Formats: sequence, C-alpha cells, structure tokens
Amino acid sequence: MKFGILVFPNAEELDVFGPWEFLGAWNKFAKGPEGLIIAQTTAPVICAKGASVNPHVSFEQCPALDFLLVPGGEGTRKEIDNEILIGFISKQSKNCKAVLSVCTGSSLLQRTGLLSGKKTTTHWNSLDHLRALGDVTVVEERFVKDGNIWSSAGVSAGMDMMLAFIADFAGEETAGIVQFAVEYYPSTKSYGGFDKNPKAPAYLKLRV
Amino acid sequence: MKFGILVFPNAEELDVFGPWEFLGAWNKFAKGPEGLIIAQTTAPVICAKGASVNPHVSFEQCPALDFLLVPGGEGTRKEIDNEILIGFISKQSKNCKAVLSVCTGSSLLQRTGLLSGKKTTTHWNSLDHLRALGDVTVVEERFVKDGNIWSSAGVSAGMDMMLAFIADFAGEETAGIVQFAVEYYPSTKSYGGFDKNPKAPAYLKLRV
Repeated sequence: MKFGILVFPNAEELDVFGPWEFLGAWNKFAKGPEGLIIAQTTAPVICAKGASVNPHVSFEQCPALDFLLVPGGEGTRKEIDNEILIGFISKQSKNCKAVLSVCTGSSLLQRTGLLSGKKTTTHWNSLDHLRALGDVTVVEERFVKDGNIWSSAGVSAGMDMMLAFIADFAGEETAGIVQFAVEYYPSTKSYGGFDKNPKAPAYLKLRV
Repeated sequence: MKFGILVFPNAEELDVFGPWEFLGAWNKFAKGPEGLIIAQTTAPVICAKGASVNPHVSFEQCPALDFLLVPGGEGTRKEIDNEILIGFISKQSKNCKAVLSVCTGSSLLQRTGLLSGKKTTTHWNSLDHLRALGDVTVVEERFVKDGNIWSSAGVSAGMDMMLAFIADFAGEETAGIVQFAVEYYPSTKSYGGFDKNPKAPAYLKLRV
C-alpha cells in the first residue's frame, strides 16, 4: 500500500514531517504502507519556515495512492486556486481508503468538494475562515474523523491524528509500536497560558 | 543570532523538523534566532525514513553559530566515526550559548567530549549504550539540561526540549507564543500500554 503526503511551496514543515515520521515508523516496525512525498514537480520545494525538500514523485509520476495526507501552511492561500493541485487531490481521493488533512490543509480538501456536509477542523486561527465557506461543519477538536476523511487542528495536531488513524486502521497495538518507537509521550506543560486565550479552540479551553 | 540544526545521512526526520518548526515559529512570531540546516556538504541528504532535504549551508560555509542542535537516528552509528562532523560540532560548540541533542544525537556530543561529567539522555533503546560510554551520567528524563548542554529522549522529545529551551532563554511568554502558533497541546493518549513496557524509560514508567 502507498501513503502519499503532499508538499507545495510554503507548506508547514511539521504538518508534513510529523505524520511522515509516524508513517515511517509504521512502515519500518509494523509493515505499514510505503510513504511518498509528492509535489506538482520534483523540483525542490521551499516550506513555510524555509526548509527545502525534494519530493519523491511529481503528480504525473505518482502511482494510485491508498492514503493521501494534505498539509497546511501559508501556501494553502495560493494553492487553493491551483487547479492542478486541487485536481490531483480530487482524482487521487476517489480511490483512497482515507484522506487526511493537517491544519489549513482542510481548506484544500474543502475546495475539492470532499468535505461537503462533513465535520472538519483546522488551525485555531483559521476556524472562522473555514466556517465561512459554508458547506462544512467545523468542530473545535484536536482532530476529527467523518467517514474516511480525517482532519486535524494546527501543525502539531497532525501527529495525534496520525496515531489515531493508525489505531483505527491497523489496531491499537500497531499504534502503540509506532508511539513507542518515536517516543511520543509528550509533555502537557502549557507556557504562558495561551491555551485559555479567547482565540483558543474549544478542546483547549475545556481542557482541565 | 543563528541557530543551526545539523543533518546527516539517516538522521531522523522528526528530530530535525520538530525543533525546526518551533525555531521557525520563534523567529517569525517572537524575533527568535535565524535557523539554518547544516550538513557536511550542500548535496541532498536522505534521512532515516527516506525524506530528502537540501541543507542551507555546508560545514565550510557555516557562519559562527549561537546555538547548535544535533539530531539522532540510525545515521549516528556511522557519523560517530566521521571526524569531519565531530570536528564541526567541537569547533562550533566552543562559541555557542547552548548545544542541544535529540535522541541518539547525544552519542555524537559524547564523542566530542562536551558531555564529560554531565547529565544527558537519549532514546530509551540507547540508554544502556550511552551509559556504557562511561564518562556521562545518563538520566531517564524527557529532557535534561546540564549547564549549557541540553539533551532529550527519543525523536518527538526534541519538541518538548525545544519549548523548554525557548522558555529558559527567552521567557515563558515567548515559549507560549511558539506553543500556541504550532498548536502544541498534544494528546496524552497511550496506545497499547508500551509506556509501561520493561524497556520504557523511568519518566514514562513513573507517569500516572
């Protein structure tokens, strides 16, 4: 099986490499799908914080995927009008067992029509923008699954979604193998109290 | 100020891009240091899970750094005998305000002598190997600071270390700005009970 992760100019690094790491551990330690980083062309892609990544395959070279993950980042504001990219997501999604988005990647899924009538989420600072698009039910959760479409809150939330996705698809034991391999037992420390900021999403404000 | 993150063949992706994301947010939203990804040459580097990254500068091109972070990954087993890389860490560290390692990156710091007599840590599966090196005090914490040397447990622990480092260097408010920007309020869910595995580090076994 093949699990593709999309990149584009100004995609957010951790949106891509958080899930990528978990996917790699799944493949290496528990026979998970093969990972591919995919972009419109195979030219280097400069991400939102300046890292330069070489995609494995272009849209044209990309085999039929079993899973597709779409990251967010500032680049989504431009890519939402990139018909080639939106067309690639639409076409691949038809055969995918699951499609996932991280952060503002959900705005790209919305543009394809895949989210129509579905629950979804995004980075806390883009919740209102996503709500304004109208045909989606925006929830303020760390991540949400609706049918075979998964979406997560901002940036680092993609890792929590990915583990939950692995558990859902391959079982809790497999998710545990991945979690232990990457030692994902994160600290719960909150700095500066921003989790109770008026702009914080509901799942944070309600957290005890 | 300049904050360098090292890469080498088979460096672990999340060891690099977790801290990189936090560093980028610190730079963008709170005037943090400029980030640079550094390798022996500027040729593409293939990481442990197969991602291909283009370094910003080679060792020779690299300016004097204020901070240096050394990732881990399977590649450390080879790089520990790479005198050019060990020499680069040694030379740059002399002028750094802080030196940080993620996962098995601590074995590279140990080789430079920087950890001599100091507390350090690593991925749970490498704790015994690090202990056997003899001149370090290995602690089973999520991360540890000893003087201006910071080291973290495996892979994802680099993000917790990075936030704590930012708080230490630039204050809790700044760390909070970074944490909120990347929405780093991770789930505490444990899958499959591996956190109580006999091989799990003390900080996990003792966690309630």
